[in-house]
Amino acid sequence: MSNNIPFTEVVAELPATTPFAGPEAIERETGRAFSARLGANESAFGLSPKALQAMQAAVETVNRYGDPENHDLRAALAEVHGVTMDEICIACGIDELLGFVIKMTVQPGTPVVTSLGAYPTFNYHVAGVGGRLEAVPYRDDHEDPEALLDKAAEVAAPLMFFANPDNPMGTWHPAERVQQVIDRVPDGRLLILDEAYVEFAPEPTGPPIDTSNPRVIRMRTFSKAHGMAGARIGYAIGHKRLIQGLNKIRLHFGVNRLAQIGALASLQDTGHIARVVGAVAEGRQAYCDLATRLGLAAVPSATNFVSIDVGQGNVAAGDRARALVRNLADRGVFVRMPGVPPLDRCIRVSVGTPEERRIFARVFERALATLAD
Amino acid sequence: MSNNIPFTEVVAELPATTPFAGPEAIERETGRAFSARLGANESAFGLSPKALQAMQAAVETVNRYGDPENHDLRAALAEVHGVTMDEICIACGIDELLGFVIKMTVQPGTPVVTSLGAYPTFNYHVAGVGGRLEAVPYRDDHEDPEALLDKAAEVAAPLMFFANPDNPMGTWHPAERVQQVIDRVPDGRLLILDEAYVEFAPEPTGPPIDTSNPRVIRMRTFSKAHGMAGARIGYAIGHKRLIQGLNKIRLHFGVNRLAQIGALASLQDTGHIARVVGAVAEGRQAYCDLATRLGLAAVPSATNFVSIDVGQGNVAAGDRARALVRNLADRGVFVRMPGVPPLDRCIRVSVGTPEERRIFARVFERALATLAD
Repeated sequence: MSNNIPFTEVVAELPATTPFAGPEAIERETGRAFSARLGANESAFGLSPKALQAMQAAVETVNRYGDPENHDLRAALAEVHGVTMDEICIACGIDELLGFVIKMTVQPGTPVVTSLGAYPTFNYHVAGVGGRLEAVPYRDDHEDPEALLDKAAEVAAPLMFFANPDNPMGTWHPAERVQQVIDRVPDGRLLILDEAYVEFAPEPTGPPIDTSNPRVIRMRTFSKAHGMAGARIGYAIGHKRLIQGLNKIRLHFGVNRLAQIGALASLQDTGHIARVVGAVAEGRQAYCDLATRLGLAAVPSATNFVSIDVGQGNVAAGDRARALVRNLADRGVFVRMPGVPPLDRCIRVSVGTPEERRIFARVFERALATLAD
Repeated sequence: MSNNIPFTEVVAELPATTPFAGPEAIERETGRAFSARLGANESAFGLSPKALQAMQAAVETVNRYGDPENHDLRAALAEVHGVTMDEICIACGIDELLGFVIKMTVQPGTPVVTSLGAYPTFNYHVAGVGGRLEAVPYRDDHEDPEALLDKAAEVAAPLMFFANPDNPMGTWHPAERVQQVIDRVPDGRLLILDEAYVEFAPEPTGPPIDTSNPRVIRMRTFSKAHGMAGARIGYAIGHKRLIQGLNKIRLHFGVNRLAQIGALASLQDTGHIARVVGAVAEGRQAYCDLATRLGLAAVPSATNFVSIDVGQGNVAAGDRARALVRNLADRGVFVRMPGVPPLDRCIRVSVGTPEERRIFARVFERALATLAD
């Protein structure tokens, strides 16, 4: 008997890729634990003490499923954002929500537009259903949303992905321009506006939320400013018909009960979020100062990370950055970098605690010196 | 401008259904909190104290993503099951794994075979990708796996779903017969063997695990015997090419960090699981005794729940059971029931603590009396 597995054609032909290697995998490979974990844009400043307490107290109830309607958290989020509960969908982070939106709108061969070098997990999900990715270049280290719109029109893409602020570069567009982009999305098309980092951005970066418009769906997360990446919880805000669509296909019992409880507590702890945003701004400045001191340029960032240009105009800038990322890993510092030129002349460093920043500064300087040899 | 959303045809035509209403939704509807939550087959006996402690201690690290490779837990599970790490895939419970296997093997129009009245979430995922469900009847309250195989051959279904022990009836087939079923799966077809409740079943119910066979994928969970339903973590065991397929499409950063840590601790606490299994067996017997005392029949169960026949031969047995479920809810007791005849002559009651069982016995007797009026 042979060993045929009845994979769909899409899955059979799909290459085995993962969006990101986890830091643990790199630690296993190098045989050394990271002393500074600055590659995944996790919050160095922890979760809200109120969320911590609520989650610890709730562990003993984890024998119970969480509420599949996520009722209490949706109610709280609806109030925060001035929308109704049926305009919010909660899932295991933006990653899962991206998968749902793609499942809802993309089939084999459907063109989908993103930026060249933008969020790999979006691309991963599109490939997973057989969608055809079309990527437009960044312009001056910024996503180029007008080019996204033009490309979508050219290839008749129903779905577009736009992150503001952007990952991996950390750059952003002001709310007014984002609103103009939203206003240009044609009927029958959908723009995903990924705002995972919007809490760190200067006001106004996120335009007012208007759920009467079914052509945009906004994505938010508790992974970044709220410091709950490991809890896996995020949400989409959109027209109720979009949310109805998500409710037809989402994993109804998917969200961890402790994540629900922690997110609710964190949402109410606005003081903690304000302190985190302040600490992150301070850390970004420290990285900029460090880059300047080392004769490098830091890309201005509205996120909890900073991309530092280490290419120094070299044509093989990507190779140089890759060598540096590896060298840093060997020295116990985890950072990541953009995947494609010209962005890959940079390394991307998450804002760490002051102690982690000191470690990074010391190790980075040594690693640069090694590379210069 | 009109309001067209670019749903795929499958999603546009999909009815808005949810596999299960959560108990919280019923509480909001009745305006009364349940005093006994016996409808979701959660563990009344809690999670392992070691898992509890490990998870509480880990909450402060939830600002970090979990390991996307689930390395440590896979290593431990591989040892427990005598397989290799690349024969295990971990996800947010069996529910999510079912979705992945379906995504991997089903496209619009693909026939898929299950039992009529079996796990609704499987059907939900099949419908979500446009698969065509074919259901074979239960036989004497048992799934009829030979009929599943025959139907799959008849309609050329690549995918079959078989739960052993079964949910919602709680019945089971011995390992020898299950092995015969596995041996009959033709090349190029895949049998999902859902063993969510296998820890509660008499030995041998699960046949030996043989990952050299790519025609079966086994599903296990931490939601039931391990008492971690709210953590959302389960796993699939199968041929490494099956697991490679899952790795191409799974949500790599999907599993909650605390769930990973708790599951690892729980796996090592074999004493706790043995105690839970003993307590559940005792509770099943208590429900059987109760049913007998009330002149009703309990369906023999190898799970953590018991289905009690409340139809009493009535032609409208389903209506009677539905009225009873509602009546119990109004009196503060949450139970569920199978969705289709002839199974729907039963209510399905999860094994509760002795106190919850006393509440159930009292309220059940009253509710039956009301129905008899």
